[in-house]
Amino acid sequence: MRIKFIMLLLCVFANTSFAQDAKEKYVLVIHGGAGTILKKNMSAEKEAAYRAALTLALQTGYKTLTSGKTSLDAVEATIHILEDSPLFNAGKGAVFTHDGRNEMDASVMDGKTLMAGAVAGVTTIKNPISAARAVMEKSEHVMMVGQGAEVFAKQSGLTIVNPKYFYTKERWDGLQQAIKEDSIKTVLDHGNKKTKLGTINRDYKFGTVGAVALDKSGNLAAGTSTGGMTNKKYGRVGDSPIIGAGTYANNATAGISCTGWGEFYIRNVVAHDISAMMEYKNLSVADAAKAVLDKVGKMGGDGGLIALDKLGNVTMPFNTEGMYRGTVTADGKIEVQIYK
Amino acid sequence: MRIKFIMLLLCVFANTSFAQDAKEKYVLVIHGGAGTILKKNMSAEKEAAYRAALTLALQTGYKTLTSGKTSLDAVEATIHILEDSPLFNAGKGAVFTHDGRNEMDASVMDGKTLMAGAVAGVTTIKNPISAARAVMEKSEHVMMVGQGAEVFAKQSGLTIVNPKYFYTKERWDGLQQAIKEDSIKTVLDHGNKKTKLGTINRDYKFGTVGAVALDKSGNLAAGTSTGGMTNKKYGRVGDSPIIGAGTYANNATAGISCTGWGEFYIRNVVAHDISAMMEYKNLSVADAAKAVLDKVGKMGGDGGLIALDKLGNVTMPFNTEGMYRGTVTADGKIEVQIYK
Repeated sequence: MRIKFIMLLLCVFANTSFAQDAKEKYVLVIHGGAGTILKKNMSAEKEAAYRAALTLALQTGYKTLTSGKTSLDAVEATIHILEDSPLFNAGKGAVFTHDGRNEMDASVMDGKTLMAGAVAGVTTIKNPISAARAVMEKSEHVMMVGQGAEVFAKQSGLTIVNPKYFYTKERWDGLQQAIKEDSIKTVLDHGNKKTKLGTINRDYKFGTVGAVALDKSGNLAAGTSTGGMTNKKYGRVGDSPIIGAGTYANNATAGISCTGWGEFYIRNVVAHDISAMMEYKNLSVADAAKAVLDKVGKMGGDGGLIALDKLGNVTMPFNTEGMYRGTVTADGKIEVQIYK
Repeated sequence: MRIKFIMLLLCVFANTSFAQDAKEKYVLVIHGGAGTILKKNMSAEKEAAYRAALTLALQTGYKTLTSGKTSLDAVEATIHILEDSPLFNAGKGAVFTHDGRNEMDASVMDGKTLMAGAVAGVTTIKNPISAARAVMEKSEHVMMVGQGAEVFAKQSGLTIVNPKYFYTKERWDGLQQAIKEDSIKTVLDHGNKKTKLGTINRDYKFGTVGAVALDKSGNLAAGTSTGGMTNKKYGRVGDSPIIGAGTYANNATAGISCTGWGEFYIRNVVAHDISAMMEYKNLSVADAAKAVLDKVGKMGGDGGLIALDKLGNVTMPFNTEGMYRGTVTADGKIEVQIYK
């Protein structure tokens, strides 16, 4: 009887161990924004272009990781691809502010050291994610905004471009459309006396990009980069450059990057809340991410997020129609998804 | 025997109940910055001035609360007193940046609705805390930076002043001293090849003000306002305008306002982490605040914070030499402290 019991225990342990070994371990997860992304509104060519860009980003990050570089290197290299593509609202392809400028925000965090860096409202830095990393590694600060951040980026040797570099016809047309719609909306709202300064059009707030990586040493890193909201005014800053809201990484829990209606993500301190639920309530990364996104949804906010835990478990929840997203596992298998 | 036991039980309940009733319920707590504040360096006149300003701030907030206004009103009115005093590093009395400007940050959060507002890098708004509140209440945004925030504040009817309003001789002299010391420090550091762009002088980062209030309806609110760091460069932003880092309020847990070495407060998402520990680990406000400040200290950061929970329990930990701080209880009893 006692031997039988010990045998049974051994079997249980063996099975558990086997199950963990066989489980897919994700090493990189990315997003290219959540929003009203519907198959019926998407041409085959456009969908193919998005899939190609997301795949290239994942391949680049994977190559970085397999060459022995860090999760931080992988996050930066991956986001460069998304920033350099005109398809996403970050870097080249950033949306325009009300004044016709491209003002970008980005942040990055290292899960091993809890070091972090962020820039907000920058207009001349080709790759804002690299500026965020420079703030983290080459200064004793965490956040720099506006012209000061640009001076710092230049002194750090980053590529500075003419603001015209960020122009794309699609985004410019988007601004003209937004201005037109907002002026109609303002007239209607004034009738109801409900207009606030800085009213948000639900459709103009999406397209942020982000990446979370886990390297061979077991270190997590997360990064987020965005052009913000089409037609934004008053130097509005969303959650992307806010450590704890749009980006967070901690080797003890997970790396997280968010995309969506930034105001709700700041108020819910989304990225850190996921980490806190994992650390203090022992929730899995998927359960914690779901619980926090539910809070955002209950308040009336929408969007999505990607999260990767220290064991390589991934979750990519969103409460919008779609979210550009993709993963690559340790064996190099790439998956890209767009719709629900 | 049974009757004796019931009597004993009743006594225990009665005592518990009595203890809770008799316990002081705090309704407002403030700080005026943590740092190298030593009695030996303080003249009797200066100490008296600080005590008078802190007392006036507490009296003002208490009057606001007892007149039936909200915790949010009390936080704003209290911080106005501290911002208008040249003694604290916020509003009038803000420190100077490297370029000789006063760039201020502030944030506020409503524990009932989890609404929040923040401004960063503003130079013409007399009371930045009111600009943060206007962002929260009069826009759909949470954070605005720089000139855009100033335009918004003006459109919201706030008092706009000439930047010269913020000049004080003491802060100007402080900048000249800081520039001198930093240039010596830079030469020394270059010898050790350890200089980073944006190096922080430990003594230049303190003086932020903040308040947390609990009103008769049981609603919490928290706010923080700062002039940032003497001699700061590159548009550096600290934790004060970051919801979750320098400020957080949630009726389910507590209201928190931080002061100290902002970079460490952002990386540790200090204010939200205290709330999360209370919510997910059932820690008391004092235990949670201590645990999180310990994390900051272990990383090499210093400063302090004030926290007030939904039951009126208060804690004001700091790991520096001193922290300007004060409380008022429901019965109007005011206490002001400076040193350890």
